[in-house]
Amino acid sequence: MRIQHILPGDIERTSMSIIASELAERGAVLPPEHEAVIKRVIHTTADFDYVRSLRFTPRAVELGQAALRQGVPIITDTNMAKAGISRPSLEKLGCTLHCFMADPEIAELAKKQGLTRAAVSMEKAAQDHPVAIFAVGNAPTALLRIAELIEEGLRPALVIGVPVGFVNVSESKEILLSSCETHDVPAIAAMGRKGGSSVAAAICNALLYGATETLDPAARGWQ
Amino acid sequence: MRIQHILPGDIERTSMSIIASELAERGAVLPPEHEAVIKRVIHTTADFDYVRSLRFTPRAVELGQAALRQGVPIITDTNMAKAGISRPSLEKLGCTLHCFMADPEIAELAKKQGLTRAAVSMEKAAQDHPVAIFAVGNAPTALLRIAELIEEGLRPALVIGVPVGFVNVSESKEILLSSCETHDVPAIAAMGRKGGSSVAAAICNALLYGATETLDPAARGWQ
Repeated sequence: MRIQHILPGDIERTSMSIIASELAERGAVLPPEHEAVIKRVIHTTADFDYVRSLRFTPRAVELGQAALRQGVPIITDTNMAKAGISRPSLEKLGCTLHCFMADPEIAELAKKQGLTRAAVSMEKAAQDHPVAIFAVGNAPTALLRIAELIEEGLRPALVIGVPVGFVNVSESKEILLSSCETHDVPAIAAMGRKGGSSVAAAICNALLYGATETLDPAARGWQ
Repeated sequence: MRIQHILPGDIERTSMSIIASELAERGAVLPPEHEAVIKRVIHTTADFDYVRSLRFTPRAVELGQAALRQGVPIITDTNMAKAGISRPSLEKLGCTLHCFMADPEIAELAKKQGLTRAAVSMEKAAQDHPVAIFAVGNAPTALLRIAELIEEGLRPALVIGVPVGFVNVSESKEILLSSCETHDVPAIAAMGRKGGSSVAAAICNALLYGATETLDPAARGWQ
């Protein structure tokens, strides 16, 4: 078994260059504005399907990064996605990070209303932080609730719609993109069944690294 | 767009029945002792590749669940995997959950030794909790360090080896399995490049749900 001896700091660079050369072998040409996001998702999943499945509304990356530079908060639908987002980058930009899933009041409200905790937690997030980046990596019900809130007038800074699964997941992403396109809300989504908390965190990190790049490259050293 | 109206509590059951029927369509026959783990990983990733890539040493599931019933702790290599593991199930079994990655002393030691924080954090975990379930979803260097420690005499209750990525990832899993087979250490690994913190957490949860099943089915309601 051959193990490559690579310094810890060089592992990510080597991975990214393997990804770039395999993308070239596959003849994949990534739009420059989407490249960092797509590559980071592949880095996180080792799954090249995301080249085809990731969709971006016009200027989604640019607008998401501008929002982060203004200190807009990030809301996740799981504590797992929250745990995967780069703290040093957030601190550098003055952004906060929230997940309301485990709040006891959310569980109570969800039970009372017959809704998922994820949907109710997005509702609370939208009340507390109407201009936020919503990153949904798990629950299609969270994404559907965001799409409804957009129809009712909510204007998030960006919606990252990458839930994973078999029930209403593909549909929730189609509905989200349709609402976002109609109401000019920036969105990034992974069409189909695949996604997850790791993918949601990876997209947030790609945006954060881009947004902090001009500030200080050391902020990227978090992973 | 057709959204299925399903009660929150029924979403997981419906997903699992879709997974079962698609496995049948593909002609996949899962060994009964591995079925719950494989299905939960597919549930978490929407990726049927895991039917082929997941490997189990003899009685790994049974031995892992027996360890959990004895209150053996779980160690993860990321706070993300830690965040994804079912708290109610852990509490029911009296198991603790640890990740040392973010400890300041780990960063310091790693820098001094020229190793990754992941490798050093496994070393610390092995000192503090020599009989533990080690769940590695991110860093191949963590898995390689565990394989070395097994060669030196460490006997974990179970090693879950599912790092993701492009540099030394496939190799680290082969080396782990070889060490585990030689020294009779139970192991579950996802061969190849794919894996991740979500997969590590999913495997832990499948084991936890199985281990708590006879205690109280309500412990499964966490997700």
